[in-house]
Amino acid sequence: MTGTLYGIGVGPGDPELITLKAARLIEGATTIAYPTLAGGDSFARAIAADLIRPGTTEIRMDVPMTTARAPAQAAYDAGAAQIAEVLARGEDVVCLCEGDPFFYGSFMYLNARLVDRFAVEVIPGVTSLTACATRARQPLAARNERLTVLPGPLPEAELRARIEGAESVVIMKVGRHLPKIRGVIDALGLTDQATYVERATLPQEVVLPLADAPQTAPYFSIILLTKGADPWL
Amino acid sequence: MTGTLYGIGVGPGDPELITLKAARLIEGATTIAYPTLAGGDSFARAIAADLIRPGTTEIRMDVPMTTARAPAQAAYDAGAAQIAEVLARGEDVVCLCEGDPFFYGSFMYLNARLVDRFAVEVIPGVTSLTACATRARQPLAARNERLTVLPGPLPEAELRARIEGAESVVIMKVGRHLPKIRGVIDALGLTDQATYVERATLPQEVVLPLADAPQTAPYFSIILLTKGADPWL
Repeated sequence: MTGTLYGIGVGPGDPELITLKAARLIEGATTIAYPTLAGGDSFARAIAADLIRPGTTEIRMDVPMTTARAPAQAAYDAGAAQIAEVLARGEDVVCLCEGDPFFYGSFMYLNARLVDRFAVEVIPGVTSLTACATRARQPLAARNERLTVLPGPLPEAELRARIEGAESVVIMKVGRHLPKIRGVIDALGLTDQATYVERATLPQEVVLPLADAPQTAPYFSIILLTKGADPWL
Repeated sequence: MTGTLYGIGVGPGDPELITLKAARLIEGATTIAYPTLAGGDSFARAIAADLIRPGTTEIRMDVPMTTARAPAQAAYDAGAAQIAEVLARGEDVVCLCEGDPFFYGSFMYLNARLVDRFAVEVIPGVTSLTACATRARQPLAARNERLTVLPGPLPEAELRARIEGAESVVIMKVGRHLPKIRGVIDALGLTDQATYVERATLPQEVVLPLADAPQTAPYFSIILLTKGADPWL
């Protein structure tokens, strides 16, 4: 009997936004795994920290910060191999992911590497998408409105084309792409309808009209353009 | 001092997918409120049932099942008036919403009616969007992929145009629109990439290739078209 790999969404940042199911699985884990950025701290682990029991084995995956794919692939290969060893001897592994594992989550790379050999269960989590909307007090979509989610690294021309034809838009992973995205939204005359949200639900949270956003943004920042959302019925 | 209105996402259906924060607020509530469809049971209340303490006052909003807006508006007006009475005497009200309050959630109609007069706090929840993806074992979006969310009631021509230009697509509120949506996906030659998910995370959950989906679908059903998602890095 091999173990089960759990891919667990720990939500957007506030430890209280972890689900009851994720909390139960983390508290009961003997081995946890999580990615870290460039050898630094793990945001996913920090969110779940109070639930991790002393003595839990921890598998760190140091994912290098680069747009080249090969170094990140090597990190997930190495992490998957370590996880496979634990699963093969019949023990479960609980993998922690920021937000939701299947919504721009790194867990999908482990899932792809391990799902053919082991039982995998994925536990959805609260995404930064809806967390940012609630913190900004802006409904994302109502009734028959469309919602478009765009990653900030997309090329300028594509961002422009996709925002132009959309109703509600959420731009994820803003980070160093903020000047480009701001330029696109300005050019479309939509700056008045845009909100910048940084580290939603954490004590350091920032919610500002896009016009007042800082010059540099962290990776975990989002822009909401809810031009279509009419919350009144 | 007036009370605070909490709009709480209780997640997609599995009571264990309620967040720790929502659970704490529901357990501590003296008054809860929730919508019911056409006088029937409340799905949101059913999800949270085990957390509601005996003696809790309950405000039901019977939202009629009709595409006309006026009857639903009257139901939210009446509900908001009842909630305002409790808030005005200094007590909090915890409003339960399926999924997330600001993601196609009914709470936004109460928020619009009450936010100018009372303190409102919105607690995000796990959406059916990511719950369905995890249950279907299909990552929604990775890296720089775009994600488009479309409500099933949209007209056929618009659905077709929006799906055609998209990468990952999720169609919400399928229900009685299933034959129309199936026709659009068939015509685009995408049926092989489409998955039907009904009542995700509940014991009655159904996950099927769209080709094998039933003829009639409940309101809480979704179609995933993850033609863009490449989970391998």
